[in-house]
Amino acid sequence: MANKLILVGAGPGDPDLISYKGIKALREADVVMYDALVNTAVLDHCKKDAVKLYVGKRAGEHSHTQDEIHALILKQLTSHKKVVRLKGGDPFVFAHGQEEIDMAHEHGFDAEAILGISSITLPGYYGIPLTKRGTNESFWVVTATTKRGELSKDMELVAKSTATAIIFMGLHKLSQIVDTFKQYRGNNTPVGIISKGSREDGKLFLATLDTVVAKKERSDIKPPSLIVIGDVVGNHSYYYEQLLEDSRLDL
Amino acid sequence: MANKLILVGAGPGDPDLISYKGIKALREADVVMYDALVNTAVLDHCKKDAVKLYVGKRAGEHSHTQDEIHALILKQLTSHKKVVRLKGGDPFVFAHGQEEIDMAHEHGFDAEAILGISSITLPGYYGIPLTKRGTNESFWVVTATTKRGELSKDMELVAKSTATAIIFMGLHKLSQIVDTFKQYRGNNTPVGIISKGSREDGKLFLATLDTVVAKKERSDIKPPSLIVIGDVVGNHSYYYEQLLEDSRLDL
Repeated sequence: MANKLILVGAGPGDPDLISYKGIKALREADVVMYDALVNTAVLDHCKKDAVKLYVGKRAGEHSHTQDEIHALILKQLTSHKKVVRLKGGDPFVFAHGQEEIDMAHEHGFDAEAILGISSITLPGYYGIPLTKRGTNESFWVVTATTKRGELSKDMELVAKSTATAIIFMGLHKLSQIVDTFKQYRGNNTPVGIISKGSREDGKLFLATLDTVVAKKERSDIKPPSLIVIGDVVGNHSYYYEQLLEDSRLDL
Repeated sequence: MANKLILVGAGPGDPDLISYKGIKALREADVVMYDALVNTAVLDHCKKDAVKLYVGKRAGEHSHTQDEIHALILKQLTSHKKVVRLKGGDPFVFAHGQEEIDMAHEHGFDAEAILGISSITLPGYYGIPLTKRGTNESFWVVTATTKRGELSKDMELVAKSTATAIIFMGLHKLSQIVDTFKQYRGNNTPVGIISKGSREDGKLFLATLDTVVAKKERSDIKPPSLIVIGDVVGNHSYYYEQLLEDSRLDL
């Protein structure tokens, strides 16, 4: 049997949100290659002699390009039976999972993937339902950082719709995003920013289209972040309390 | 301490795709109220004396309305410490999770939710990456069955966009959906239909906007289903093989 690459979604930060199937794969892994977004507490499920390799690529740190990661995976696959590639969230949501599987297959190795809880479901963790009957009929998930470096042209269609917008990696383009939404939705449209997922130091910031840019500038919001725009955010039990506090701060 | 409602996402069908946190909640539950979409194999994690209640609402079966489910939850909460509400997928993605939490709070009970792997990540399970660099920058998740019973008005905006469309509960409106997409996307746009999630009898059907309606009529596709429209579907390793076979069948 050929050596095998197993992609595992580690979930959105809380180490207990990994799937049972993912834990089983970690228990059997000879090598685990893990990303910056993975909570390293999940590595406790590994065998004692498993090799653990950090292959993160986060802005500002020593980073591995996708090509370097591919080379590293191949190197491990030639000498180990079970190579787990552990990714934050789900392997197929803005995570290059398919590229890594295709690459392993092209070189004659087996490859499979174990789904994970995607970071897109994080709003629920913070008291914001992704969908609520009578409030929204759809949600739209986009990365603000595209290959071309521009804001996705779809952003305007989303702004026109009833969809809740879930925006990955958008912190550095926040004012551009807000301007697009203000053309079609009211200034009081609720906005939430989730910083650092469901990790212990994770946080939720509540604002409106009108206040979010100023609020972000005065805050310590750090990537990774998830921006949520839409009426479901107003469902948060502290939403109006928070707005009142902001208005006292003249935000 | 007040009795507590714990919403748990059971994931998309494969019983090992529930989270570790979800398993821990099941182990401690006094009562588990579970939906039609839950794979009952996950109930093996429960205590021996836990009460297991089926509260499904699937078309054609004896069904519980959301109001009936609320009443049942309240009844259990008055007499049991830990009531788990087990839902297919994630509790906050088209699953009435927030309504149940709000209801428990209004009656003075504690309530929390444990995220699950949403059915929206199912395409990855079947070899279709939800996102792929260079192919798509976003995906849009929409339910075809709205409160009013009509096709969501967002559907046309989705069709206009470049987003991969992920459509819940759309099987009975397939031709209407296809007509909407044909206005804005080519007839050869790839379409996938996933039937029965990641259960053992789950299946993926591959087609195009042009062939999918005829193909569905000749098939045994059953709800629950997830319809995926977009170029990422063409990434499936059997996609072109399947189309060739369909053309021989004159589909």
